[in-house]
Amino acid sequence: MNLGKKLTAEFLGTFWLVLGGCGSAVLAANFGGDGNPLGIGFVGVSLAFGLTVLTGAYAFGHISGGHFNPAVSLGLWAGGRFPARELLPYIVAQVLGGIAAGFILLQIAKGGGGFSIDPTAAGAFATNGYDALSPGGYTVASAFLCEVVLTAFFLIVIMGSTHKNAPTGFAPIAIGLALTLIHLISIPVTNTSVNPARSTAVAVFVGNGALSQLWLFWLAPILGALIGGMLYGWLGRNEADIVGNR
Amino acid sequence: MNLGKKLTAEFLGTFWLVLGGCGSAVLAANFGGDGNPLGIGFVGVSLAFGLTVLTGAYAFGHISGGHFNPAVSLGLWAGGRFPARELLPYIVAQVLGGIAAGFILLQIAKGGGGFSIDPTAAGAFATNGYDALSPGGYTVASAFLCEVVLTAFFLIVIMGSTHKNAPTGFAPIAIGLALTLIHLISIPVTNTSVNPARSTAVAVFVGNGALSQLWLFWLAPILGALIGGMLYGWLGRNEADIVGNR
Amino acid sequence: MNLGKKLTAEFLGTFWLVLGGCGSAVLAANFGGDGNPLGIGFVGVSLAFGLTVLTGAYAFGHISGGHFNPAVSLGLWAGGRFPARELLPYIVAQVLGGIAAGFILLQIAKGGGGFSIDPTAAGAFATNGYDALSPGGYTVASAFLCEVVLTAFFLIVIMGSTHKNAPTGFAPIAIGLALTLIHLISIPVTNTSVNPARSTAVAVFVGNGALSQLWLFWLAPILGALIGGMLYGWLGRNEADIVGNR
Amino acid sequence: MNLGKKLTAEFLGTFWLVLGGCGSAVLAANFGGDGNPLGIGFVGVSLAFGLTVLTGAYAFGHISGGHFNPAVSLGLWAGGRFPARELLPYIVAQVLGGIAAGFILLQIAKGGGGFSIDPTAAGAFATNGYDALSPGGYTVASAFLCEVVLTAFFLIVIMGSTHKNAPTGFAPIAIGLALTLIHLISIPVTNTSVNPARSTAVAVFVGNGALSQLWLFWLAPILGALIGGMLYGWLGRNEADIVGNR
Repeated sequence: MNLGKKLTAEFLGTFWLVLGGCGSAVLAANFGGDGNPLGIGFVGVSLAFGLTVLTGAYAFGHISGGHFNPAVSLGLWAGGRFPARELLPYIVAQVLGGIAAGFILLQIAKGGGGFSIDPTAAGAFATNGYDALSPGGYTVASAFLCEVVLTAFFLIVIMGSTHKNAPTGFAPIAIGLALTLIHLISIPVTNTSVNPARSTAVAVFVGNGALSQLWLFWLAPILGALIGGMLYGWLGRNEADIVGNR
Repeated sequence: MNLGKKLTAEFLGTFWLVLGGCGSAVLAANFGGDGNPLGIGFVGVSLAFGLTVLTGAYAFGHISGGHFNPAVSLGLWAGGRFPARELLPYIVAQVLGGIAAGFILLQIAKGGGGFSIDPTAAGAFATNGYDALSPGGYTVASAFLCEVVLTAFFLIVIMGSTHKNAPTGFAPIAIGLALTLIHLISIPVTNTSVNPARSTAVAVFVGNGALSQLWLFWLAPILGALIGGMLYGWLGRNEADIVGNR
Repeated sequence: MNLGKKLTAEFLGTFWLVLGGCGSAVLAANFGGDGNPLGIGFVGVSLAFGLTVLTGAYAFGHISGGHFNPAVSLGLWAGGRFPARELLPYIVAQVLGGIAAGFILLQIAKGGGGFSIDPTAAGAFATNGYDALSPGGYTVASAFLCEVVLTAFFLIVIMGSTHKNAPTGFAPIAIGLALTLIHLISIPVTNTSVNPARSTAVAVFVGNGALSQLWLFWLAPILGALIGGMLYGWLGRNEADIVGNR
Repeated sequence: MNLGKKLTAEFLGTFWLVLGGCGSAVLAANFGGDGNPLGIGFVGVSLAFGLTVLTGAYAFGHISGGHFNPAVSLGLWAGGRFPARELLPYIVAQVLGGIAAGFILLQIAKGGGGFSIDPTAAGAFATNGYDALSPGGYTVASAFLCEVVLTAFFLIVIMGSTHKNAPTGFAPIAIGLALTLIHLISIPVTNTSVNPARSTAVAVFVGNGALSQLWLFWLAPILGALIGGMLYGWLGRNEADIVGNR
């Protein structure tokens, strides 16, 4: 398979993830202002993030594997499922796709009544953050722990549901809805990253604190992904035994 | 296969899309008035639109392909998946099915306490609009960009999830939930179209601004669909290579 | 297959539908009173009804077909998919299962703080109604039209998604989520029936208007089901042609 | 198959269930305080619990069967689907995994602004309870009946959707969404257990009433699971007849 098409698929898939996930947060989460139940709230944003991956994985999974996330590529490499030589090009394509989506989202959002970005507000333009930039005011330690644990389980679900003993064809449902679940838990803590490309894609347009806190949303998801990838790598090995058990 | 049955399927499927999607918006989105959380809000409307396509595609997909949308038919043609000679009859059946649903919905809605249509209100009778008729007051440029990009990705998901290398049988889930996702993002911008038949189906009963702005909801979705169809047409070609990669 | 086991499956499946659907409405829809967004609202009730059928169809579908609804049994008979000789026992099992669930639900609900049933309130104990007993004050004509059209499409989705040309195994998802969709549209109109057993199951514990209006929730769903069953019966015939088209 | 890997899978799966289900309740259900519709409410918590099982069953089901719940292990044993000799180790792994998640969740939650646990409040730190500790003030009798009936149906869905005549691969969807449905019904009654490991996992960090009421959330779910397991064990037997019927 042509590496160019794989990278195009990762670019487009990460574009879709940021446009849909961050887009729903920016445009629709708090529609009508506080107290208006028409807005989609955190449930709607959680669904949106998950559905970008569910739909993207069905559309692009058979081309590129459907990572759309540097932490996922690294975790799959740690679990023995992805070649080291493709790590860098994949991550570059993901980051560029995310930033392109952030740019388009900004153009759409600017056309709305009274849109502006306040970089001192938690979650501004769907950025991730801790301390004063955490939606619920969570500390850097809470944020770090939360991102590590959730990304580790994200990798476990990804590796488990794509394991050759798992039912065929269902992995995009499991993986997409795992991302929905992760957002249902942790939007109040960090506005939920588990994906360095997603964090970078909006931070570059906000600057300030969003950029200076970006290190955590590279470090913690990648650390979690490596842990999850290696853990499931061990758990899922010895397929002969597993098959024998069924 | 009998063209008459295909067109009946497209008529019924588009009827279902408009009755369910626009019906949930008109009847249930804002139940009890502003601030009442019993109403289904934009999350409920987004789910409803997506589920009309998910269920309709399982019911009618094996008869007509399950387009229910002129932009989809045109995008699939651009991507080499649909014959030009069936474009016009499909589009006519879709528009007529949508308008029939708009008529039935109006009869149901009229029986409710205090129902009336204010054609100067954004989103009246679930119409699409920009500027003063955008739910969030978005400009025509924002609206156009938003409809183009989202329809392009809708086609990408449709073509990717029905690609012969994608898991069999899951496409209606991916496609239906992609439409849910698209609504989660963009109801505030244009009340979400990505479907000229859906926009027409309610605009004809509202008239005024809804009709005079209808051009955008034909032009932008079709443009986006052609872009998405051609892009995935290129990406999904060379299947031998793709198979070899798996 | 033993008819006793089929009827047990229909009894249990309809019990589950009423316990889950009506139970979520009675216990959780308006938790904390008006304006409290913790309650599940109409979106939650819609999901609950749909998930009773989705889960029940996977659990019981291979035993009884998973109807859980007299209108569905009659519509499938009209569409040539169900034998006339099993209609009466199926319907009796469904009604009894529903009433048993209504009884258990009442025992659970009675233990809650301040629970009482006001039979003059629309939607009391999850009953269906029109005019003064419609949640949104819809007329008998609106209610009748709404129940006919939605039940017709429910049968179309049931017959289409279980057609031999549809993807295998997905029908419970399509059918369950069709019921979710139907509730997203029509809870404000009639509190949504499309199922005479569900309506009867709670009306018998409320009496008064709920009982005197019960005729509509037998007549309209059955009429709609017969229309939908016959329509798809025609549309789905000539399978050779359909296969040839794929 | 190595028992150690099975127990690791049950430990991790129950960890995920408690972290995701209880985590979403503690961190996100009531975000911003009463009346703020950004919080995920009971719908979000119901989705989260269900998605932990849906995703966990795809990830771990082919290793351990994906129980994550002592009542499920006992119900499957009662239904003839699980060997008695593995009951005790499975239950120990589940309880330890749940408690580990409760501990991690507590560390994350502590970092949020103004977090504290009031053990006299219903649902504190996502604990289960009745009477004064029931979210809706339900009596012990209501709570017991509710947990028995819902766990019985949970087992029926588990055994039915994994029956050899059911469609292959869909069981995690049916089982996960059954848990979502159960929460949509019963959060107001008991804060929903149907899982002694989940109840224990948070009660040990709250103490007081949560611990003294814990007996019900072992007794009722296990009783319900035994009933459901035995009932479906009878219903699903005689597979030859069932096959003959299809």
